[in-house]
Amino acid sequence: MLTISCGLNLQYNPTFVIRKRSMDLREIIISSSKEAYQIYVPHISVDTVIFGFNGDRLTVLLLKMKFNEQWFLPGGYLKKDENLKSAATRILKEKTQLDHIFLQEFSVFSDLNRSEETFKDFPDDLWHKKRFISVGYYALVNYKNISLIADELSESCDWIFLHDLETLPIIMDHHKIIKKALSALRKQISYKPIGLNLLPEKFTLPELQKLYEAILGRSLNRGNFYKKIKNIGILKKLNEQRKGGAHKAPDLYTFDRENYFRILQNGISNW
Amino acid sequence: MLTISCGLNLQYNPTFVIRKRSMDLREIIISSSKEAYQIYVPHISVDTVIFGFNGDRLTVLLLKMKFNEQWFLPGGYLKKDENLKSAATRILKEKTQLDHIFLQEFSVFSDLNRSEETFKDFPDDLWHKKRFISVGYYALVNYKNISLIADELSESCDWIFLHDLETLPIIMDHHKIIKKALSALRKQISYKPIGLNLLPEKFTLPELQKLYEAILGRSLNRGNFYKKIKNIGILKKLNEQRKGGAHKAPDLYTFDRENYFRILQNGISNW
Repeated sequence: MLTISCGLNLQYNPTFVIRKRSMDLREIIISSSKEAYQIYVPHISVDTVIFGFNGDRLTVLLLKMKFNEQWFLPGGYLKKDENLKSAATRILKEKTQLDHIFLQEFSVFSDLNRSEETFKDFPDDLWHKKRFISVGYYALVNYKNISLIADELSESCDWIFLHDLETLPIIMDHHKIIKKALSALRKQISYKPIGLNLLPEKFTLPELQKLYEAILGRSLNRGNFYKKIKNIGILKKLNEQRKGGAHKAPDLYTFDRENYFRILQNGISNW
Repeated sequence: MLTISCGLNLQYNPTFVIRKRSMDLREIIISSSKEAYQIYVPHISVDTVIFGFNGDRLTVLLLKMKFNEQWFLPGGYLKKDENLKSAATRILKEKTQLDHIFLQEFSVFSDLNRSEETFKDFPDDLWHKKRFISVGYYALVNYKNISLIADELSESCDWIFLHDLETLPIIMDHHKIIKKALSALRKQISYKPIGLNLLPEKFTLPELQKLYEAILGRSLNRGNFYKKIKNIGILKKLNEQRKGGAHKAPDLYTFDRENYFRILQNGISNW
């Protein structure tokens, strides 16, 4: 089982981990601002929306700030010597220890005054108080074997069910960013195969249908789904059945990896 | 007929139009740099990829620099008081006089050293020489009734056929940006209706198929295409035929606007 320790959003580098124990949060933020000017490109940030699937419903990974009890997406800034994709990968790893996750860019958030409010009580030259244009990345992971623990500063991080988001206090426009990511994910399954790394090596068609239903947020007609998913050409039927259920043992399938990756590259041809 | 005068890429405001007549291009650029620091957010630019369709093949709108004979996309910078979508709309209008075009954000370009080379002979504090992360927007327009003319500085602008791009000298990563936009457009027709404003009010299915083939860059099976496009539910068959051809007069169709806009909003349900 992989254990994830969620880091503090304002923790830029290892020296901070030591220093912050003897500082209060306000001082940490002000001090991190000075470092930020040296390391990062101003005005550009990255937010990552990590959707989790455990065989049933979709969740999203959120962190919790201690100083105002609000939740936020794993995010950070663009270093002067990296591109956005590298930044997103690095930030996700720093904040959640999640590694080797394929991150898909989906939208840019550039409204005026989207981030200024959060740091309104801080000095005007605070890095975090600048106008930031945030580039969103999303990923979909199987979190069945991942457990999360908060770090020593008592921030917590958790997989939040999508339907619980509405009532959760979430900072800035992160709610809008999550919605847009979900909309992008739903579009993606119109032209890209999905499921590898989310389902076990061998799976049944009802299990695959559950994944599609969890993403789309609605039930699908079984016969129609089976016909369409088989037509894409990414499934290999195995000579085995899933035993032990109350019903007739369903056939097991696996992904035809060669076709899967070819179609992932070229897109599902709907025309 | 709409006549488009393509503006100079470095022309920021009307005072420039007058002043630039008596300055050489190098001076114009250096002088525009000072203004840029006042008006724009550093490090963030916008590029627009405008695809044209005239009933047959796809083209892309490019401008030509006089000082190095290279082609480039209509682009510019983000003002301090606008969001990216407003910037893209404004920039397209300033550079090409195209207005009321629906621009779709598709990707962000953030490689290191993507723009620095172009201005390498200029002073280091030149605005244009900074690192820029560019947000790409695309649109698809019918250019049948639009004619382009170059402005008094002899830059030209033109609709370039996609297959002529390979041999054209194009600055920076604009070639990559065009390719990515085309790829995004091809994905979009998997989940969004297309054709309104690109085809005449009344059109035949062969004409609609031509549009899809121009976008996808390949031939489609006629029977298959007709079946799928009718299934989406955006077409209304009229009680008229297109007369005058050598073949049997084909039926005329029009878009069912209510369904068209509803499906544009919700996406084509492939599942």
